[in-house]
Amino acid sequence: MRKSGSQKMWGGRFHETTAASMETYSESVSFDFRLYKYDIAGSKAHATMLADNGILSDSELTRILDGLTAIEKEIDAGTFEFRQELEDVHMNIEKALIDRIGPAGARLHSGRSRNDQIAVDFKLFLRDKCDDIITLLNKVRSAFVTLARNNLGALMPGYTHLQRAQPVLVSHHMLAYYEMFGRDKSRMEDCRKRLNLSPLGCAAMAGSGLPIDRKQTAEALGFAGITANSIDTSGDRDYALEFLSVCTMIHLHLSRLSEELVLWSTQEFDFVSLPDKFCTGSSIMPQKKNPDIVELMRGKTGRVVGSLVTLITVMKGLPLTYNRDMQEDKEPVFDTVDTICASLSIITELLGSIDFKSEKMAAATQTGCMTATDLADYLVLKEIPFRQAHSIVGQAVAYCIENNKELSELTLQELRHFSTIIGEDVYEILRIEGSVNSRNSLGGTGILRVKEALEAAEQQLRKES
Amino acid sequence: MRKSGSQKMWGGRFHETTAASMETYSESVSFDFRLYKYDIAGSKAHATMLADNGILSDSELTRILDGLTAIEKEIDAGTFEFRQELEDVHMNIEKALIDRIGPAGARLHSGRSRNDQIAVDFKLFLRDKCDDIITLLNKVRSAFVTLARNNLGALMPGYTHLQRAQPVLVSHHMLAYYEMFGRDKSRMEDCRKRLNLSPLGCAAMAGSGLPIDRKQTAEALGFAGITANSIDTSGDRDYALEFLSVCTMIHLHLSRLSEELVLWSTQEFDFVSLPDKFCTGSSIMPQKKNPDIVELMRGKTGRVVGSLVTLITVMKGLPLTYNRDMQEDKEPVFDTVDTICASLSIITELLGSIDFKSEKMAAATQTGCMTATDLADYLVLKEIPFRQAHSIVGQAVAYCIENNKELSELTLQELRHFSTIIGEDVYEILRIEGSVNSRNSLGGTGILRVKEALEAAEQQLRKES
Amino acid sequence: MRKSGSQKMWGGRFHETTAASMETYSESVSFDFRLYKYDIAGSKAHATMLADNGILSDSELTRILDGLTAIEKEIDAGTFEFRQELEDVHMNIEKALIDRIGPAGARLHSGRSRNDQIAVDFKLFLRDKCDDIITLLNKVRSAFVTLARNNLGALMPGYTHLQRAQPVLVSHHMLAYYEMFGRDKSRMEDCRKRLNLSPLGCAAMAGSGLPIDRKQTAEALGFAGITANSIDTSGDRDYALEFLSVCTMIHLHLSRLSEELVLWSTQEFDFVSLPDKFCTGSSIMPQKKNPDIVELMRGKTGRVVGSLVTLITVMKGLPLTYNRDMQEDKEPVFDTVDTICASLSIITELLGSIDFKSEKMAAATQTGCMTATDLADYLVLKEIPFRQAHSIVGQAVAYCIENNKELSELTLQELRHFSTIIGEDVYEILRIEGSVNSRNSLGGTGILRVKEALEAAEQQLRKES
Amino acid sequence: MRKSGSQKMWGGRFHETTAASMETYSESVSFDFRLYKYDIAGSKAHATMLADNGILSDSELTRILDGLTAIEKEIDAGTFEFRQELEDVHMNIEKALIDRIGPAGARLHSGRSRNDQIAVDFKLFLRDKCDDIITLLNKVRSAFVTLARNNLGALMPGYTHLQRAQPVLVSHHMLAYYEMFGRDKSRMEDCRKRLNLSPLGCAAMAGSGLPIDRKQTAEALGFAGITANSIDTSGDRDYALEFLSVCTMIHLHLSRLSEELVLWSTQEFDFVSLPDKFCTGSSIMPQKKNPDIVELMRGKTGRVVGSLVTLITVMKGLPLTYNRDMQEDKEPVFDTVDTICASLSIITELLGSIDFKSEKMAAATQTGCMTATDLADYLVLKEIPFRQAHSIVGQAVAYCIENNKELSELTLQELRHFSTIIGEDVYEILRIEGSVNSRNSLGGTGILRVKEALEAAEQQLRKES
Repeated sequence: MRKSGSQKMWGGRFHETTAASMETYSESVSFDFRLYKYDIAGSKAHATMLADNGILSDSELTRILDGLTAIEKEIDAGTFEFRQELEDVHMNIEKALIDRIGPAGARLHSGRSRNDQIAVDFKLFLRDKCDDIITLLNKVRSAFVTLARNNLGALMPGYTHLQRAQPVLVSHHMLAYYEMFGRDKSRMEDCRKRLNLSPLGCAAMAGSGLPIDRKQTAEALGFAGITANSIDTSGDRDYALEFLSVCTMIHLHLSRLSEELVLWSTQEFDFVSLPDKFCTGSSIMPQKKNPDIVELMRGKTGRVVGSLVTLITVMKGLPLTYNRDMQEDKEPVFDTVDTICASLSIITELLGSIDFKSEKMAAATQTGCMTATDLADYLVLKEIPFRQAHSIVGQAVAYCIENNKELSELTLQELRHFSTIIGEDVYEILRIEGSVNSRNSLGGTGILRVKEALEAAEQQLRKES
Repeated sequence: MRKSGSQKMWGGRFHETTAASMETYSESVSFDFRLYKYDIAGSKAHATMLADNGILSDSELTRILDGLTAIEKEIDAGTFEFRQELEDVHMNIEKALIDRIGPAGARLHSGRSRNDQIAVDFKLFLRDKCDDIITLLNKVRSAFVTLARNNLGALMPGYTHLQRAQPVLVSHHMLAYYEMFGRDKSRMEDCRKRLNLSPLGCAAMAGSGLPIDRKQTAEALGFAGITANSIDTSGDRDYALEFLSVCTMIHLHLSRLSEELVLWSTQEFDFVSLPDKFCTGSSIMPQKKNPDIVELMRGKTGRVVGSLVTLITVMKGLPLTYNRDMQEDKEPVFDTVDTICASLSIITELLGSIDFKSEKMAAATQTGCMTATDLADYLVLKEIPFRQAHSIVGQAVAYCIENNKELSELTLQELRHFSTIIGEDVYEILRIEGSVNSRNSLGGTGILRVKEALEAAEQQLRKES
Repeated sequence: MRKSGSQKMWGGRFHETTAASMETYSESVSFDFRLYKYDIAGSKAHATMLADNGILSDSELTRILDGLTAIEKEIDAGTFEFRQELEDVHMNIEKALIDRIGPAGARLHSGRSRNDQIAVDFKLFLRDKCDDIITLLNKVRSAFVTLARNNLGALMPGYTHLQRAQPVLVSHHMLAYYEMFGRDKSRMEDCRKRLNLSPLGCAAMAGSGLPIDRKQTAEALGFAGITANSIDTSGDRDYALEFLSVCTMIHLHLSRLSEELVLWSTQEFDFVSLPDKFCTGSSIMPQKKNPDIVELMRGKTGRVVGSLVTLITVMKGLPLTYNRDMQEDKEPVFDTVDTICASLSIITELLGSIDFKSEKMAAATQTGCMTATDLADYLVLKEIPFRQAHSIVGQAVAYCIENNKELSELTLQELRHFSTIIGEDVYEILRIEGSVNSRNSLGGTGILRVKEALEAAEQQLRKES
Repeated sequence: MRKSGSQKMWGGRFHETTAASMETYSESVSFDFRLYKYDIAGSKAHATMLADNGILSDSELTRILDGLTAIEKEIDAGTFEFRQELEDVHMNIEKALIDRIGPAGARLHSGRSRNDQIAVDFKLFLRDKCDDIITLLNKVRSAFVTLARNNLGALMPGYTHLQRAQPVLVSHHMLAYYEMFGRDKSRMEDCRKRLNLSPLGCAAMAGSGLPIDRKQTAEALGFAGITANSIDTSGDRDYALEFLSVCTMIHLHLSRLSEELVLWSTQEFDFVSLPDKFCTGSSIMPQKKNPDIVELMRGKTGRVVGSLVTLITVMKGLPLTYNRDMQEDKEPVFDTVDTICASLSIITELLGSIDFKSEKMAAATQTGCMTATDLADYLVLKEIPFRQAHSIVGQAVAYCIENNKELSELTLQELRHFSTIIGEDVYEILRIEGSVNSRNSLGGTGILRVKEALEAAEQQLRKES
């Protein structure tokens, strides 16, 4: 019988050994080794099922399970040597098993393919990471709730177009982020739900002719069910794409938060001084203290977006089932997982250690005619149509700018120059506190509303943890 | 009293008129006019609520509702003139209302902002489009189920790496797409669920000081509830980003389907001939018939991905609440809506009119040693470890290639050269039909499994429609 | 003779008419009509060459040229009716020509394909747009030079990490943008150079068997030469991709400029007040004046990036020569051209009308210990190793922060507490003006260097215009 | 004197040590260590210049140069320990130098910043990589020229829309890729030209007050000149963006080549069998031989595009000069450099070892009425207007399809049924070879043209190497 020209476990029909350049170009074990726990768990479930269905004997099963446990310990301990020429984590572990326990090991791959394995490994990995990220999102949300609680009553300017718009409570602003990261959590939960179906047993792409039991392995691995079509399953990376989409949205939210913290740390805004331990200095300018943490976080948005675009580009135009292009799915996902987890962790740590400069923030509400809308609403309540009220107040503002005054500094006589309907009671609503506390529509910045929202958030977090 | 230098409805404090170049650069009415029905519905709900809360009189309300109805009819009829200098759909309609009914119209904007309006309009629009797309996805899924039903029993090669892998049922391949578009539907439903909260009443960004009732307007507009934080709400475009993400995944699926139809239409594959009515010819080559429809569909994936990247880029690094950058959200969403709807419609129409060349497909399964895995499984069932079986079959395949034969064409003597365990019964599993029908694992291509899947799909579609 | 089932000019072999949905899905005339002048110019050059090579008679040529001129005038005048069922600009014009002049028109398409035509049209269009954008870049650069000239001597804080770093001249900051847009110009020139080769005469993809003269038509259309390989040419969209890449970089530069102008317009920075005519107000807040122009410009970066990603996605993985996917190249390019031209025009107009608040800018240099590096350099010149000097100054800065002082406000005694080597002469370099003017390294912010740079820029612009 | 709370070399003014999480999140030495040779070269040039300008003594210079040489040897040897807490490659090397040679080392950073260093290092690195990639592009081009030479005369179908269009020479198709990678080279040369200006001496962002000589260091490092504006320079990453844009285009070309090789390797096309050494098998299907190399190459396009989008996203909306976000520029560039170099190397190796199945290719030209255009041209030369000729041939093709014949198989009588002008001489141009060789327009596939193009390419490559 002719000897195969290849040393690979799939090399029966090959005449040449793989080119060295090809081994380097195509190996994945340098990054997919990271999935070893999931790969071993999948193999154990598969072996158990094979034994239950008569393809492995009980003693073979025992040897396989023990062998896999031993290999896992070696990998845990860092003494296992992954070999590039064995291509991927699956072949490295299978080869080690065969080397260790002999023919029983060579029976393990009955009724499954590497396509099965990588899909199982990747989904189990992502399921865990969904859980990790949900936990981290809860911590970030909790940090914002704490900030909201601790700063209750403090004032700051609300902005639109980065121009001072209306005074708001600092707590209200903090709770905006609580909402944003709450939506992220909801998206991540949906992503987890959709990916939690077992691909194991789809084999090459057509299912298996051996008597395998997909439901058994799915249950053993904690999946909620099995995928419905083997062709679809072997070519599916929707779960990775959806995961990256959700992560992109999380990091976009972090980029907005970062931008605000960069702004608030400037000498110009001066709303917050980030702790020294999260800043760095300059190699040349001795006076510098830079808000590096949030700049980096804003910047790392780029790599998350880039990873999403990477996988989109990979998948575009591929015919069905597995194409080797799809091996390029792992690195962008791994990088994204690491980035998102690091960013969420460190921002939680940062938020737990910042103090707002409340006086500076409050002082910033005193200029810019920020109660102009209140004055317009005052006129509306006195039966002046809103558009007319808007125009009257606009002219009062123009007068203020020309005379370098705030609305609340105008005399009643000056005010009545714009509308004779204005009375002494106007000064209450021209005060910042009066303005803020009047905004009692649901979801608004009035103190009653914010207290309610804060309590609801605290209750929600207690329920979720 | 000084006269404003601006003619704008917000121009009280301005000294200059807007530059002509600026009007062109910043206007949005040339595209957001498309939201007029939603804008009017939102205004009607708002006006009704204002009246219920004493800000409008009953007669004012009547005039407003009648005025808005009249304006909607004008727009429907194409006789309404949208004016660029009024910037957007909101101001165009409000101005027309004031021109038509006088001071009552000038009261409509009490307690709301354009930020409110655009968020209401955009969410209502997207909610409708989610529904439309879900309906279209069901039609595509139905078209695949019909193809699966009509081709039941027909064979084709299953591919991995675009190399012939294992024979499969054509119906099984069709049902793979049924699954893919089913996941898309599930994502779209989650997107719809998350966006269906009313932003109305968040006003500028801090809520309103007037006695407005957000729950009432939410209910009137069919929202499932209201958003919780006015600062978050005025700066939120998550719903548009999520919608674009889901659409990107849909069009990636379409790109894979297109690629397959392009391939199957080649003279080399020759699995299908697309109907003339979906092909075009060449201006220079008289013999050409090109599968333009699916090439275009594959290409249009680009614009959907581009739109997602557009909005991601827009949102990156923006501080909270509304920034004018966010006006750039509409065009990519509109273009994506139009593209997805057109692509889903036309692919459904195409799928309803294609005939597979079943004989060509079946013939293609006869070469390429596609039952090699079956032979390996045969050996496994005879107690040969899978890895050894794989190697044995690999060598038999190499022998076939050298001698230009198929596995089923080898004599028993030839086969036993590779393993003496092989018996006469091997020929059953070396037959294509035998191979296909042995794949009875759940989700596999065996005819029993495919029939079950087909019936389940048909039942599901009946339930959903 | 059987009648074709199609009415198309390419429909000889077709049995069915094109589906209505397909016509809508695949037509391009609704956007490529914009190329009509180039299409007609290309046809005239082609016809003239055909006549010179005996394929057209002189009288046929005359009729074709006159016919095309008449059609161009109709299109100019808006009286030409483009018809969707004729698919694209090429077929619309050719059909109109045949209708107008009869059989001579039917000879025009000899030896060319629509692939030729669209490549010619698109390259001629892009060549013109490269020129337009180069002109617009020069205007922007000129605007910055004017600002630099008009503000010569004015001070502002230089920032790194958006923290005050070192005082600089406003003119120096303006000239940074002069450099950035200068590099953009250089890239656009390289793009133009590379695209300026004629594709005409590559025909379907293999060249023509008719006696055509590619060099003649290239010369007539102002191309610098011809492309070298017909297969490459018919599948090439490098020129569009390169154009979009260059435009992306331009708009990234605009996004940075916009960000700065947004920041400088805040109440917190208050370095500039944008003219009313480029700002808009709020529908609800009467006091608001928003820097919409630069927010929109920052936002429009998204659509340019999106267009680049669109075309990248389209081209990924296409086999050689023309595939219909490539029709999707036009809209992203057109949108980018319009966006870039509008953005460059309006920013030039804006820059020509802004006044910096020089006193505010100068005042901002007075805080933040911005001459700390100067103090370190002072110590270096007194032989203290830089690292030690940096540390000494760092501690002096910490002392300043604790005592709420600037370095220049410390007494000599206080300063000597950190290093006894410090003498009375230190106060010269602790002054802002002293600091700025000491930075005389090439490219630095010292007034001498900035004057040189300004003069060089002015001279360069004169040379280029 | 108070002790700084930080151990960092910039920590004079800091009270706290950096958080552990922050050190991990913000360090760059784990990837920028790769720039060490460039960093040391830059430091040597800077030190020499400082000595020439009196800031270092000769003996200090000697100690610095020797120290840096020793450190470089340690790094080369793998014995140098990079420490994360020293943040980046610059600080690691500077600290090691000070530890090794004392105070002289502490003088090295006079008149420069890390911004200077990273810009110098990165530009020197990229300049080398531009050169490497240009060399690799030449090798790929050379490989295509060799294939063109070795297959001269061989026929294949030319495709448009992946439908057989016109017969072409295999060599002509190979030379199309020669052109494509030639344009890539031209773009890379322009990129190199533009980046080759020294940033060194821009210091923090305002230039230096010490007597430094930027031209001297630029010359020492082989730069063609110096950058003109220190503010621009410290915030500039255009060179990295342009580099990534050029690389994106290279890998898009590779994706198209890969797609073709995937297609040509299918059982359906069967134009080429990739060498075993570049293919891999299946873990489950013994007969499989998959074209992994080209699938992976097509897939790796995704990571290059992703890297471009990453850096675009990072830079969008940053204010001028350095922001820490920009640290995120290195990893995408490094990954792209490695990917492009590996892809170009391995494709060259592959192209050097493939054999086309010339008979299969030639046979594929015999069907599909691929000389239909020739027949139309034949009629044109007999004075029939092209549009009419196209229609006549279209009907002949329809007749062929119905009767399952090729055009060349029609009798003269049959042909004359479509046009009585057709004579016996028609059969010459209906032959594939006759068709190909008639295409003698410049850049066409006629053998004369292809020979000329081949010789020109060979000459060009000799000139360039």
